Parts: sequence; C-alpha cells; structure tokens
Amino acid sequence: MINAAGRKIADFYPGYGPAVPFKGAFAYAPELHRAAPHVRHNASGKGKKVISSLKEVFQAIPIRDGMTLSFHHHLRNGDAVIKMVCQTAAELGIKDLTIASSGLFPVHSALDEYIRKGVITSLDSSGIMGSLAHIVMDGKLPSPAIVRTHGGRARAIECGQIKIDVAFIAAPVADAWGNATGMEGRAAFGSIGYAIPDAQYAENVVIVTDDLREQHLSRFSIPQTLVDYVVPVPSIGDPAGIATGAIRWTKDPIQLQIARDAVKVVDALGLIRDGYSFQTGTGGISLAYTRFLAQLMGERGVKGGFAVGGITTPVTQMLENGLLQTLFDVQSFDLGAVQSIARNAAHLEMSAGYYASPFNSGCIVNDLDTTIISALEIDRNFNINVLTGNDGAIMAGVGGNPDTAAGANVTIVVSNLLRGRMPSIVDNVHTICTPGETVDVLVTDYGVAVNPRRSDIIDGLNGSGLELHSIDELQAIAETLCGKPKTIPVTDKVVAVVEYRDGTIIDTVHQVAH
Amino acid sequence: MINAAGRKIADFYPGYGPAVPFKGAFAYAPELHRAAPHVRHNASGKGKKVISSLKEVFQAIPIRDGMTLSFHHHLRNGDAVIKMVCQTAAELGIKDLTIASSGLFPVHSALDEYIRKGVITSLDSSGIMGSLAHIVMDGKLPSPAIVRTHGGRARAIECGQIKIDVAFIAAPVADAWGNATGMEGRAAFGSIGYAIPDAQYAENVVIVTDDLREQHLSRFSIPQTLVDYVVPVPSIGDPAGIATGAIRWTKDPIQLQIARDAVKVVDALGLIRDGYSFQTGTGGISLAYTRFLAQLMGERGVKGGFAVGGITTPVTQMLENGLLQTLFDVQSFDLGAVQSIARNAAHLEMSAGYYASPFNSGCIVNDLDTTIISALEIDRNFNINVLTGNDGAIMAGVGGNPDTAAGANVTIVVSNLLRGRMPSIVDNVHTICTPGETVDVLVTDYGVAVNPRRSDIIDGLNGSGLELHSIDELQAIAETLCGKPKTIPVTDKVVAVVEYRDGTIIDTVHQVAH
Repeated sequence: MINAAGRKIADFYPGYGPAVPFKGAFAYAPELHRAAPHVRHNASGKGKKVISSLKEVFQAIPIRDGMTLSFHHHLRNGDAVIKMVCQTAAELGIKDLTIASSGLFPVHSALDEYIRKGVITSLDSSGIMGSLAHIVMDGKLPSPAIVRTHGGRARAIECGQIKIDVAFIAAPVADAWGNATGMEGRAAFGSIGYAIPDAQYAENVVIVTDDLREQHLSRFSIPQTLVDYVVPVPSIGDPAGIATGAIRWTKDPIQLQIARDAVKVVDALGLIRDGYSFQTGTGGISLAYTRFLAQLMGERGVKGGFAVGGITTPVTQMLENGLLQTLFDVQSFDLGAVQSIARNAAHLEMSAGYYASPFNSGCIVNDLDTTIISALEIDRNFNINVLTGNDGAIMAGVGGNPDTAAGANVTIVVSNLLRGRMPSIVDNVHTICTPGETVDVLVTDYGVAVNPRRSDIIDGLNGSGLELHSIDELQAIAETLCGKPKTIPVTDKVVAVVEYRDGTIIDTVHQVAH
Repeated sequence: MINAAGRKIADFYPGYGPAVPFKGAFAYAPELHRAAPHVRHNASGKGKKVISSLKEVFQAIPIRDGMTLSFHHHLRNGDAVIKMVCQTAAELGIKDLTIASSGLFPVHSALDEYIRKGVITSLDSSGIMGSLAHIVMDGKLPSPAIVRTHGGRARAIECGQIKIDVAFIAAPVADAWGNATGMEGRAAFGSIGYAIPDAQYAENVVIVTDDLREQHLSRFSIPQTLVDYVVPVPSIGDPAGIATGAIRWTKDPIQLQIARDAVKVVDALGLIRDGYSFQTGTGGISLAYTRFLAQLMGERGVKGGFAVGGITTPVTQMLENGLLQTLFDVQSFDLGAVQSIARNAAHLEMSAGYYASPFNSGCIVNDLDTTIISALEIDRNFNINVLTGNDGAIMAGVGGNPDTAAGANVTIVVSNLLRGRMPSIVDNVHTICTPGETVDVLVTDYGVAVNPRRSDIIDGLNGSGLELHSIDELQAIAETLCGKPKTIPVTDKVVAVVEYRDGTIIDTVHQVAH
C-alpha cells in the first residue's frame, strides 16, 4: 500500500510484524493501553541488589535466547556498556537478541562480531552509525532494523510495543539500593532522560555503574523502586567520547548568514517576545542561531520562557544570564551542559516521553514556538531525510527531528543549498524521516522558502527584507550550480523500516544496488 | 477462614470483592501486572487543558454513575477540593461514586450529605476521621469502607487493584499545560507524594488549583504528560488547616522519659552511627525522640544517613545542621517542613510507592534502621491497633504504621502504659493494623518489652541499664493500676475491611453493639 507520504509500505515485515502505513502527522490515534510489566516483589536492602558480574545477572534473571535488551546512548561514542553486555551474552551462548538502544554509534562496531555469530539478530534504534550501519545496509541482519524517533521510542516502550525484557542502564553513579544518576561521577553525562521509559517499563532493570556509593544518593533520576540489580564494573565508558569539551563555533560566513536569517525569520513572525520557547540543535548553524538569538534578546530585554532538547552550553548561558526561565534536558550535549544540569535548579532533566512522546497527555515539544532542525536532504514537498546519505546508506539517525517538527509552532530547516557538490533540495528525498506537512520554513544561503501550507508565515515574512523563494526556485538554483542528482538505485530488499513517531511506517530503507 | 493474625475473614465482602486472608507480613507475593490505563492522545498546548469549571470537566470526561474518584490528603483538615467535586457530582445527579482518598478528615463531614443522597456509596482511605467515621460505624454505607496503608494504597493503584477513573489532584500551583507542584503558592503543602501514584495510573487526571501560572513551571511534581484537565478555582483549601504553624514540644516528663529511653534502646543496639536512617512520627514522644537523638548525634559527631516519612521541622533541622544527608518526604507535616522542601536540594519529595509500596523493586522503608511508631493499643502478641478507639469505633487511620514497621530493621512502639484510665496493653487489640511479627520493641513509662522473636535485640539491650520486662509483665502492671478493660461487644455487621499493605485482609471492623 502507498502511505500518506507517498511511499510503498508492505503489510508485514519479518521481525517487525504488521505495519500500519503513515496516515498523516496527526491522523493516527489508536486505542491502546499502557505497558504492564510484571510486578516485582524484591525485598530491597543495602547491597542486596549488588551483583559482582554481568554473567551472574544474566543467570539470575535469567536472560534467554530471543530476548530484547535495551540501552541508552547518553554515553554516545564513549559507551562501553552495550559491548560488555553483548560479550557476556556471547560467552553464555545466548542467541537471537534484539538490541533496542536509543542510539548506536561508531564505537558499537564491537557488535559486528555478535551479529555475525547470531548473538544479535535485530536492531532497534533512533540512529545507527559506523560499521553497524554497513552491516544493516548489507542485509546481514535476518530482519530489518527498526528506526524510531526519540519520542516514538518512548511511545513504543510506554505503550508496550517495544517489550523490553532487560534494560541495562549505564550510570556514572549509583547507590547500593539501585538509585542512579547521570549528574555526577567520572563519566557524568548529565540527563539520563532517554533511559527513563526503559526503567519505567522494562521487565527487569539492571544498573551498570563504575561508581557505587555506600550512602543513599541525595539526587537521582532512576529510583530504586524500579531497579532489580546493580553491577559495578571498572568503567562504563570513555568520558572523552561522551561529550565534546567545548562548543566549536562555526566561523563559516555562509553558515553564520543562514543563522542570522533564521533569527530574522523568527523575529519577523513576532515570536521573539517574553516567554519565547525554542529548541535548537548542535550543528554549526544551530549554535550560531542560539548565539545571535541571545544577543538580540539581551539587547531588547526579552525574557524567554524555556528551551528544550539536547541542551548545549550556549543555551545554559541563556538560562544563567536570565534570558530563559527553564531548560528541559533529555540529553546534555557537552560538558558545559553536564555541569549546568548538576548546578542549576531550573535546568531540569526530562524523560524521553515528556520530551516527545505523541501518545500521552501532552509532551513538551508541542509547546515550542520554534524549532531549528537540520536535514541531509529536503524535497519539494518539504519532506526531510536525516537518515541516509548521498549513497543511499544509513549514516545517522532520525533522533528528535520528526518529533520537534511536529510539535513546534514554526519548524525551520537550516541548510546550505549545496552539500559538497550535491543539491540539498531534491525531487524526492531518499528516505522520508520528517513529513513535509510538519516543516514550515527552509532557510538557505540562497534565500528562504516557506511551505505553501503556511500562508500565515508567508504573510508574516512579507516586508521582512528576507529573500523569499518557492522551494522549486531554490531547487532550480541548486541544479543550475551542480546539476540534478541521480536517483540512487536500490534492490527490493528492505533493510530498515522507519517508524514515524506515532508508530506508523513512514518509509523503508532498501539495500543499495551496486 | 482464620487468617495468620488469628482473625476471622470472609471469602468475599460486598463492594470489596474476593478477600485474601492475611498470610504473614512477607508471605504473599502474587503474580501481578502493573496497571495499564488507556493511552491518551492529547495535543497539548498552552491553556488547552484549562477548563473553567468542575461541571465542564465532569461533562468532558464524562464522569458517570459508579466511577471511582481519587484525592490526596496533603491539604489535610484544610481541604476544600473533595467537597467541591462531590458537590458537582450531586448537582449533576451522579450516583454510586467511590471516593478513594489517601485520607479523610473532620472537614470532610461535608460529604455526609452526599452519602445520605447516594451520590457516594463507597469509601477507600488510609484513615477516616470525624463524622464520616460515625457514618461508617453506623453501617450507613451499602458496602464496607476499605482501609489501606499508605504503601498499600500505592500498591493497589500501581497494580490496578484500585481502578481510578478520575484523579482530582489539588495543587497550590499549576501551569497552563498541567504541570503542578505543592511547593509554592498560598496553600503550599510541600510534598505531593501521595498523589503521584494517582497521577501515574488514573484513567483521567484533573488538576484543581487556585494559582494558575502562565509560564511553564521550573519545578513540578506532576508532569503535564499525565494531566488532562486543569481547573482554576477560587480556593483549594484553608492553609490554617493544612499545617500547624509550629511544632508543639511536649513538656510532659513521662513522655520525655519514654523518648529518652527509646533513644537509649537504639543507642544500646549500636545503631546511632554514621549513616543511621530512621523514621519518626508527629506525636509528642516522637518529636522528643528526634530532639534527643539530634542532641546525641551532635555531641558525638555522628553523621546520619537519611530520614523518611511525614517530615517535621526537627528532622529538617537535622538536615540543615549536617546531621543527616537526605530527607525523603511523602508528606510535609508542618510549615517548617514545607519551607524546607522548597529550599533544600537534599530534602526530596517521594511518591507513596517509593515510600512504602511492598510490590516493587524495593521501597525505602525497607532501608530504615529504626522506626518510631505509635499505637492506640498493643497486645501480648505485639499486634498494634491505630484505627479504632476505646469504644470500638474508627477514629484515626493506619497510615504508614504497618509499612514502616514491616520495613525497618528495628520497630519501636512508644506509648504510655495507661491512656487515661485504660491500659495500652490488652489481650487482643480490637483491630489489628500492624502485625506483631513486625513490631520489635515497646517502650513505656514502666519499662521496655522486646518481642521474643527478636532475641538479637534482647541480647543487645542486656547491660544497657534499661528496665526490661516481658510484655505480659507490663500488661500485669497496667491491669494492677486500672483493671482489665472489657471486650467491646460487636454485631456481625462488617463496616470496614482493613487491608494489610500486600492487599490481604488483616482484620475487619464490626459495628459496635449498643
């Protein structure tokens, strides 16, 4: 069948199950109950949950063939926990595991071996980078990888669609009763927000820590009431891979100009006012946007409301300078953000569900005035691809891109018109991750295009001095400069299904034909 | 059938359902799943949940005959919300409601009328005071009232045994998206911990507030993701009824002596050491215990771990003076505690489940070194009655008494040997609330008795200088002084079932024969 984004979707994907085609960003609201894991009856007590090795945890639960083990990606490319858990599984001869992580990074190339050996047969993640992506693209998994948005992953866990048998939660500090936090310790990473749904709904919860405290923590994010085992290990990861030490400001004049124009768009729409709420990302243009925004708000004496997301140092500075009242942090993106969340009472940790799940009584992305998002490609219908590269292969993740686009009042894509020698605007993006109906404005170095669905924004930008084009005009400029990109030939083999945040299938990734 | 506490329990109680007899404090661990309420699909947005009257909320949900409405008791005897909700129900002609509140106070005599009219036909609470208790005792409810411990109520909600159709959560401050807190506002009451399970598991959640904020709160306890409606009202209650302004220290030399002896017991057992954790109550002896304990710890330079509970000013002073590291607060018992939880980062709010639910991966009462509890009566098997008075009528609540007794390493009952002209020690307590197997030490003004089950404690107290007796000896002293109390005659009619924290029936309250 053809879904509402125009993509052909099968009724069923092996290893995924029945597929519901994407119906429109807000069109699907099925009757569901929340997940109902087994009630545990653990008589807790100091140290009673502490088990000295992962192997003993595997035996205590016990972990069996075919189970789903979940992980979070706050340790990013420094994570050591997924590898050590999978290694334990391999040593115990366990097969057919599903690895459901909120993210998979180049460091997880350590898992390649366990896929080859059949220990891991399924991946479920918001993004896949490095050699694991190659393995997926080569069709070496028996079933398609499942790609979910950050909000969609929370929804799937909270609604019982990802049934987690065991959540392994890396924590830089935990206590002997199981309370755990990301705020302190050698490998502190700040918010542990992506792991909160896992902790709430997994059948078993294991904390893996390299700093086990003998006193009850006075601040924690994962409560002992949800935790069954605590495993001390020598190291949960390499802090150098966890967070970049400092923000790298772009000096590229083109990127700076795009950022300035994005601020102009938001200003022309009258949104930079007291209470203004926004999300920005970690790319060079996004960081420059935040800097220019802060400057403008400071000059005008505007007191913003809140910022959401992946939090970076520039946003924490806005909080500390009184330009914002609250930060909602699902992932602390750099060391400045890690330090801020530990220090500032109004820098709040939030769960992935509070951030972006579409199936609850209202997540916070719904409350955003604006979001600044990136794209690998955008097409004439404003659909965005943030997953697959110029060669048609998975190279990144959908993350919160589709969530924040759906939630924010005004969604702004910032992008150079050309990426290397390729146009950023195409007839059809290779993989639809974020549907065009949720994308409002494209700001490029060759001008601004507004989604025709948003005549209110077009009206708002008239007279702003910004150079407005249709997206077709911008595409024509790009193609004049470097030609029309060729369509990437693919085979019939589906190597990944891309879920929209509501659990419908918005697109699939096919193996590339060579 | 006769349960493990020796009480006769029916197989079934109308309005309650099948009854499982009490089997022993830790003997019952049924296979259960967590509650799974319907998933809501609310597109939130500033003000979209705000509804101007309770009547409109009733119509929007809609609330129908036979539903269960839940409430919390943090407003205590100042609460105005239960009354206004029931009044709305009456005006709309709704019948057969169950009122499931974490507590019912004399102020709730306003509900008498709605019971007479059939609007309310069932009560479910951890305690019932005032005229509602008379109504229950008079058998005017069609089915027995259900009395649950604080931890048992959390368990029942979390495990789907209390199915809440609508949770009405009084909040002194909320924002236009539904985030709510008890920390601020005219009627600030501090921790909102008893309402957290309701918010997590009710089918519908309504915040009732008299201070609606236009900006997202920077600190909140009930997240917008769980909240469906926000109703602004002129007043959620009378702050004068919420908290006593200041602690009333007892000057009674007998009570002071009991408190000193309780400290001596704990000290003789070697528990007053670094990391010591405890719960105390709000009675005169309990408060004096805290004061003497703080003095001793200060003199010796002991750094305690944490205190739990109903938090009072003396405990917050221990935190602020460095005698404790953390407070876990499910209910802030006085204005000093309300101010402390708003001010001190290590004064943590906790849910009723984290406090005391027996059916999770380990609640914090399990981690207590000691708890100091009170009793209306104690019997020769160390069973405790905290529910019914000398006349056999319900006059108070079980609260956290059974929970903390089960959890703590050493449970100490502090009591005058005589209450007025009645012995505190009886052959059989009128109503068993806390089973004797979980009660370790009785400290009275005539000496100390240790439960024979705890030979380790008896050994520990030898040579302490404390006057040790068997409980039978203390009972004999009491009866020498004022005679043996008469057994209270009762009819066959069961007016209340008393659930143990695990959901088994530990006792029932019968109508008193006149």
